[in-house]
Amino acid sequence: MLQREKVAQAVSILREKQTDCWITFVRESAINGDPILDYLIGTDVTWHTAVIITASGKSCVICGEYDRKTIENTGAFDRVVGFVKGIREPFLEAMREFHPASIAVNYSRGSEICDGITHGMYLTLMDLLQELGYQDRVGSAEAIVSAVRERKTKGELDCIREAIRKTEDIFAKVSRFIAPGKTEKDIAAFMRAEVEEARLEYAWDPNHCPAVFTGPDTAGAHYAPTDRPVAAGHLLNMDFGVKHRGYCSDLQRTFYILAPGESAAPPQVLRGFETLVDAIEASRKAMKPGVRGIEIDAVARGRITAAGYAEFPHALGHQVGRFAHDGTALLGPAWEKYARKPHAPLESGMVFTIEPRLTVPGHGVATVEEMVTVTGSGAEYLSSPQKELILIR
Amino acid sequence: MLQREKVAQAVSILREKQTDCWITFVRESAINGDPILDYLIGTDVTWHTAVIITASGKSCVICGEYDRKTIENTGAFDRVVGFVKGIREPFLEAMREFHPASIAVNYSRGSEICDGITHGMYLTLMDLLQELGYQDRVGSAEAIVSAVRERKTKGELDCIREAIRKTEDIFAKVSRFIAPGKTEKDIAAFMRAEVEEARLEYAWDPNHCPAVFTGPDTAGAHYAPTDRPVAAGHLLNMDFGVKHRGYCSDLQRTFYILAPGESAAPPQVLRGFETLVDAIEASRKAMKPGVRGIEIDAVARGRITAAGYAEFPHALGHQVGRFAHDGTALLGPAWEKYARKPHAPLESGMVFTIEPRLTVPGHGVATVEEMVTVTGSGAEYLSSPQKELILIR
Repeated sequence: MLQREKVAQAVSILREKQTDCWITFVRESAINGDPILDYLIGTDVTWHTAVIITASGKSCVICGEYDRKTIENTGAFDRVVGFVKGIREPFLEAMREFHPASIAVNYSRGSEICDGITHGMYLTLMDLLQELGYQDRVGSAEAIVSAVRERKTKGELDCIREAIRKTEDIFAKVSRFIAPGKTEKDIAAFMRAEVEEARLEYAWDPNHCPAVFTGPDTAGAHYAPTDRPVAAGHLLNMDFGVKHRGYCSDLQRTFYILAPGESAAPPQVLRGFETLVDAIEASRKAMKPGVRGIEIDAVARGRITAAGYAEFPHALGHQVGRFAHDGTALLGPAWEKYARKPHAPLESGMVFTIEPRLTVPGHGVATVEEMVTVTGSGAEYLSSPQKELILIR
Repeated sequence: MLQREKVAQAVSILREKQTDCWITFVRESAINGDPILDYLIGTDVTWHTAVIITASGKSCVICGEYDRKTIENTGAFDRVVGFVKGIREPFLEAMREFHPASIAVNYSRGSEICDGITHGMYLTLMDLLQELGYQDRVGSAEAIVSAVRERKTKGELDCIREAIRKTEDIFAKVSRFIAPGKTEKDIAAFMRAEVEEARLEYAWDPNHCPAVFTGPDTAGAHYAPTDRPVAAGHLLNMDFGVKHRGYCSDLQRTFYILAPGESAAPPQVLRGFETLVDAIEASRKAMKPGVRGIEIDAVARGRITAAGYAEFPHALGHQVGRFAHDGTALLGPAWEKYARKPHAPLESGMVFTIEPRLTVPGHGVATVEEMVTVTGSGAEYLSSPQKELILIR
């Protein structure tokens, strides 16, 4: 079970990061959840809940009485304590017993997946820790939360592989559906019908999952499909992903719509597509544990600008896990919005997208997004990489 | 459109609460959303996003460039500004222009629906406001967020009514399915099949929506259905709700399984059920604008203990909206975990559950949960109240 595996992994990460105690503190998690909660208890909680894991290996959850049995059933914790009226007393008692010298809490300026505690809950937690005189022992759990999410187990990788396989199946089916005259909305509807038919979940907001962009006048990215029809000479691209057992895929594929009499894409379209594919392969080859994401982003960005195309206005790749955008380490440039993420070193077990983009004037946008996992010595594809434009007749 | 209606309502609430400016500040909202976001932009955002609404009536959203068009399409804001590299500059520029004397931010110790900002995002926001010298102008937006969520428009009430109607339909169907020998899991599966068939969404985690409890040895509440079979003499209760256009229902109904030869429930079961129904009706009659929830909770709690039953170990009722547990004001006792919620006065347009509970020894738990809305002068049922035990032959 994921929770048992991850709580045990967390203990070893606490030792590695020399932190005594890690507290995840939430309430009404269906409303304001902490994204790490799925890894620890795998269910929503209603009342104030503290998940306490210590470097000594002891762990404890304090929760509302009605949530107690569900959490006990994970088998991941030494002790689950339920309360009826309030968390204060059982929480103070547990913390007095653990008596930690350092306490990690889930907040982070720079990494949203490590920023699960709301400000009001942070204030409540600090009020409680102040009663024990522990308020100066608190720091960010960013390094711990990142490692728990990013170091994928074999079971997690298998789920991602399966999500990718199902995504590739739907891309194969839609390749036979796309035709001149069909609109972006028609194509998205076809793919959503496949998702519903297979009883899959979307990897992100279905308003733009899939995102479909055809021709030279598209919105760019993250925008809902429109009534714009496919026409000869268009580059068409799609961004699409599904979830399998809670784990996401996130892939992009590019299509070219042949004009009557054409049997291949024109040279400038082919050159754009091949520049992309080369940039992806060069990036993958440069990936290995210890390298920083900013260096990988620079590989792809450099190839694309060297070929005379404009810089893509986003990071080269992000991690994928229970969210389509997951993890802290990022294959990205040193832009303000990415904070310290591009500077985090790659580790074995991380799963990344590689997704450069470029515009071929008069035809549209070429984007290909592959998924790779970092191994002990390099990185290998999880997806079956797109090596040729998909031609639509 | 909800967003236009709610942004306009927010302006008048800002004036009422004498606050110049309200900032909702989020990023990767699919991961760490703010529960008010649905009312303001109705979509998820990827990058740092500031939704700024002012008492002057001016409003502005600053967001990642790829999210800009979707937010513009709400038609709810004067201005939507997209950025590529970071929010800092456009945010500072907008705030300099608004130059507010007071700034409300979505954090709250006592109310989870008003606690949408994460601690890391709060730190980032304070860093930015400090650059302008505005850091001492910040306070909690609890009163504003509460009013926006709690003062339901006619359109919102219509959605809730429809969710209730669909829930009552499924309760009627399952009444013909329940029979001795069927397990809690069987009954839950039947209801979930109805939900899927009608393509509805669950009002809460489907692991315990519906929750099904039969007989004297049940888990109590919030626990997943088990393999326990229904048997003659059992009280069986269910907690169930669905969503219609984003708005929830949340109802409980109680059933009695007749023994061979029985044509009515035994007197002690009837007495328990009638005590519940009387407590609900007395509570509803006591509700009106200005009364505090703690007074209403005391009405039901008093009736039930006066009849010799143990106090129910939860609040009498909560608000319902886009979440099954919504709103700040609560019909609850003065327990630590409820913070100041039971002391908030009722307002017209609020929607509450009324859900006392009691145990009939040897038979099980009787629970009935109705939904009511506060009007200008009292409160009226939104659900069709259960007045008699549903008898299963």
